[in-house]
Amino acid sequence: MTPTSPPMRDLGGDYESWLERLRFDDRDLVPVIAQDATTRAVLMLAWMNPEAFRRTLATSRATYWSRSRQTYWVKGETSGHTQHVREVRIDCDGDTILLFVDQQGPACHTGTTTCFDAHLVFVDGGRSDQFGATGD
Amino acid sequence: MTPTSPPMRDLGGDYESWLERLRFDDRDLVPVIAQDATTRAVLMLAWMNPEAFRRTLATSRATYWSRSRQTYWVKGETSGHTQHVREVRIDCDGDTILLFVDQQGPACHTGTTTCFDAHLVFVDGGRSDQFGATGD
Repeated sequence: MTPTSPPMRDLGGDYESWLERLRFDDRDLVPVIAQDATTRAVLMLAWMNPEAFRRTLATSRATYWSRSRQTYWVKGETSGHTQHVREVRIDCDGDTILLFVDQQGPACHTGTTTCFDAHLVFVDGGRSDQFGATGD
Repeated sequence: MTPTSPPMRDLGGDYESWLERLRFDDRDLVPVIAQDATTRAVLMLAWMNPEAFRRTLATSRATYWSRSRQTYWVKGETSGHTQHVREVRIDCDGDTILLFVDQQGPACHTGTTTCFDAHLVFVDGGRSDQFGATGD
């Protein structure tokens, strides 16, 4: 992996101490929520294994593990829709990661701002609805 | 709109049509992100199976499947820290749910506002830190 911009950062032994707090599942993965640091919109959910976590911390570029392609995936590497990581948090029981990111362009591969823009099941009051910015 | 005591709603066949859009994993689960409808804070991540999804839509009370206890879990049923569901969204590929909720009290069983308050791995600029509202 050769990210073009942000320099590698030396966080010393922190990677390993944080990794010890994470509880990876039987596939060696944890779910990762990416939230827009400015708008606070939840952009997407993806997965990290220990090495994706290390790479994200080292580069400040959100780097996931693609379960379908079985490979590392630097978000925006091909689309340009990168995620610069502002903040990394781990939840109370260590099995979920939350990233605050600066999202360049749409987060979703369908072209919508977030991956949650396409399917609205309901809004309070009982209105069941569906819409699709991409025509769905 | 009656946030305090949501009535059961008849959404007819909608449950099943939305369930068809969801891609449950090999344990019949999907991850569910709960976001505060007012503050936009990401509160927690939990899991739903098809029946938890149905129950959530029917009652507007966030209802999850507890993987550790292998049982349904109406959030706040014992603590009173309920989640009234304002909005339900499904992501582009149908394998994650996003709930907008009105959270009563702290979302985390540790007493913090969110489950992501305890462990801050880093903030942009390289500062590696850790804090714990509950003393961690």
